[in-house]
Amino acid sequence: MAKAVGVGLIGLGTIGTGVAKVLSANAGVIEQRLGFPLRLVRVADLDTETDRGVDLSGIRFDSDAEGLIDDPEVEIVVELIGGYDVARRLVLRSIEAGKHIVTANKALLALHGAEIFGAALRRDVDVAFEASVAGGIPILRSIREGLVANRIECVRGIMNGTTNYVLTEMEETGEDFDVVVKRAQDLGYAEADPSFDLDGVDAAHKLTLLAAMAFGAELTFKEVPTEGIRGLAPVDFEAASELGDRIKLLGIAKCHIGDDGQERIEARVHPTLVPRRSLLAKVEGAMNAVAVDGDAVGPTLFYGAGAGELPTASAVVADLVEIAREIRRGGAGRVAPLSYVPEALRPLPLVPMGELWGRAYLRFTAVDRPGVLGHIAGVLGEHEIGIESVIQKGRGAATESVPVLVQTHPAREAAIRSALEEIDRLPDVTAPTRLVRIEEDA
Amino acid sequence: MAKAVGVGLIGLGTIGTGVAKVLSANAGVIEQRLGFPLRLVRVADLDTETDRGVDLSGIRFDSDAEGLIDDPEVEIVVELIGGYDVARRLVLRSIEAGKHIVTANKALLALHGAEIFGAALRRDVDVAFEASVAGGIPILRSIREGLVANRIECVRGIMNGTTNYVLTEMEETGEDFDVVVKRAQDLGYAEADPSFDLDGVDAAHKLTLLAAMAFGAELTFKEVPTEGIRGLAPVDFEAASELGDRIKLLGIAKCHIGDDGQERIEARVHPTLVPRRSLLAKVEGAMNAVAVDGDAVGPTLFYGAGAGELPTASAVVADLVEIAREIRRGGAGRVAPLSYVPEALRPLPLVPMGELWGRAYLRFTAVDRPGVLGHIAGVLGEHEIGIESVIQKGRGAATESVPVLVQTHPAREAAIRSALEEIDRLPDVTAPTRLVRIEEDA
Repeated sequence: MAKAVGVGLIGLGTIGTGVAKVLSANAGVIEQRLGFPLRLVRVADLDTETDRGVDLSGIRFDSDAEGLIDDPEVEIVVELIGGYDVARRLVLRSIEAGKHIVTANKALLALHGAEIFGAALRRDVDVAFEASVAGGIPILRSIREGLVANRIECVRGIMNGTTNYVLTEMEETGEDFDVVVKRAQDLGYAEADPSFDLDGVDAAHKLTLLAAMAFGAELTFKEVPTEGIRGLAPVDFEAASELGDRIKLLGIAKCHIGDDGQERIEARVHPTLVPRRSLLAKVEGAMNAVAVDGDAVGPTLFYGAGAGELPTASAVVADLVEIAREIRRGGAGRVAPLSYVPEALRPLPLVPMGELWGRAYLRFTAVDRPGVLGHIAGVLGEHEIGIESVIQKGRGAATESVPVLVQTHPAREAAIRSALEEIDRLPDVTAPTRLVRIEEDA
Repeated sequence: MAKAVGVGLIGLGTIGTGVAKVLSANAGVIEQRLGFPLRLVRVADLDTETDRGVDLSGIRFDSDAEGLIDDPEVEIVVELIGGYDVARRLVLRSIEAGKHIVTANKALLALHGAEIFGAALRRDVDVAFEASVAGGIPILRSIREGLVANRIECVRGIMNGTTNYVLTEMEETGEDFDVVVKRAQDLGYAEADPSFDLDGVDAAHKLTLLAAMAFGAELTFKEVPTEGIRGLAPVDFEAASELGDRIKLLGIAKCHIGDDGQERIEARVHPTLVPRRSLLAKVEGAMNAVAVDGDAVGPTLFYGAGAGELPTASAVVADLVEIAREIRRGGAGRVAPLSYVPEALRPLPLVPMGELWGRAYLRFTAVDRPGVLGHIAGVLGEHEIGIESVIQKGRGAATESVPVLVQTHPAREAAIRSALEEIDRLPDVTAPTRLVRIEEDA
């Protein structure tokens, strides 16, 4: 039997603690599958005092991350401190020291991935990051290996548990956004500063990684058009329900091939109406799901917990097992980290958001006066946006604002935007219009 | 760049044709991911005449399977002829010749897996079989690698597209079983002799492989209690709908750990009522889905096409890519085919079906006479089976038989069976009672 592979863990927060627990609790079953032990030998965290409820006896635990990296017993470094600068420095230093890396840090990879993967390739070490997208769901290895035979056409899904929890709760309780966000914070589903999640940035990081892997595109996080879930109101959920839909924050990436054979990527993160009969609509609470359409396999979907101590640890430890195997078999680089071999990755242009076509749900807020709907419809018509249905909620006093809910026929995004700009300047329109795109084949 | 790996394909039926198509159509993208080409060099089939609509120019195509196996250009043999005897002989011969194997033949592996995996281990070649379970869904590699950190608690799912198509159609149309089966045959969703699918045997083969991989159990196909979908009637679908459920043919495997630490496996295939809100209930038509619960990851689900030319080819080619990688990296046996290293596989006893507990749906057929329900309820009560709800459909003439639909409280399977034996002997009960088990947490 090969000897144990030693693991060093930097960052003993929620996920780090989960990794220590799983490595300890499931050491036996992991060894039965791997053929030899995987052993946590060292942990580094600035806070060495707090009791995390995990037994670290026999494991060196101090605040010396660099000592951990240089420790000859550590063959794989797990980076779980999050953030950009320190994480980047420690990861690059580990790579230079010839240590393999496992990380859950999507932000780091979405922004500094090219640098990190390049350094790893030169130093012949592996960088694994299954936990960085959709938590415990093995979506990255499924794209890289399980669906490797396919030209991937579309990747889309619910990639952020916090926002999905908020959307599910708003729908079920009819409560306002702020109330639900507060509760999510109290329950630990949302962070003290939840902007990264609520504004879609976290989902955009994940989508960037998925799109790169699906289409062989260089990582281009900065370009992904991103809208979060702020500004959604209870009335939007009622309207969605009447339309047979649910509202989900989706990350969507598709590959378009032009008549000239030129590939372009469509990528975006925004709240989306999805048909209630679709599987994505059934994903509730903090769960995640990623749907992948391939030209051979057709539609697929991968569902599971997108965050949390143990689900995320499940993905981190899966990466550790895979790397440990390759260490004992004598080499890194079995599978290209971004699915395509580095020389096949190429910059693929993004389709400008304005060029996209689709149906939209629009919530106008207007003074309830005769003729207002006519005005709005007129502007939409001038921009060649057809109206499929209108829901007008209640009637108030003549000076009161009411929501006017419109579902459009397919229209060009640029047309919708300029129509909304114009409409939002109408004197009877009293608040900015909320736009939610419709993904009917989701 | 490494030189191309040569593939030989035995069996140019539906799936074999799909494999040839995918290898040709997606050769470019596969090479961009693998780093070198994967090349179909030889095909063998008894029928060399029929036009399959795939271009085989430059590929040797004849009926000489043994010549293909011995061809030095063939490094991986794809076995897609199905069945037991010839397939077994060709697979074992390929292994002896030092060729790696990719197969979609679940029946072969469920029955002769131990012999085949043993031979492959001795000869140091790989046997890959992703396509044998749930078609294009990468469920086997997800269990083996993506969820490797977990003690797996439960695997259950819709593993047969033919039966799921029939059940979906019966529910939607209200038509009889025979009518829908006939249509499934006309549309190519069911074979001329559909017994293997309809009687649950195909699902049991797949469940055998999944259970072995999930729990490290030796393959024990013969022991899986299996019931098919014959005998279900339109009234059962109406009742399911009234109960908020749908009827699905599930394969279910769970691991029970006794107070003494002894592991036992629960495994069974039968029609099942699942709650309409569950993801499994949303799997329609010929699609498949497998839900896996792990102790770290929690609930997961993997969804996609369970059969068909191109989806199944997607899985076969994924296996080819993985083996090709290992050939060029210099060794077989990276991951144990049944997830646990051979020496960790052990015979795990099956929990006798009679010991299981659960709720049940029972359709009694009885003469519509006062007192009949009392009789039935009396027998159930004697066996300590509580009644949760009763639906009595219509009233006929006094001599006419009507269905009496009963949902029970949780009860022991053995008690249900002996109660049904007794009830079916009552003079007013005119047809055998149909039992459908209820899986409420599915």
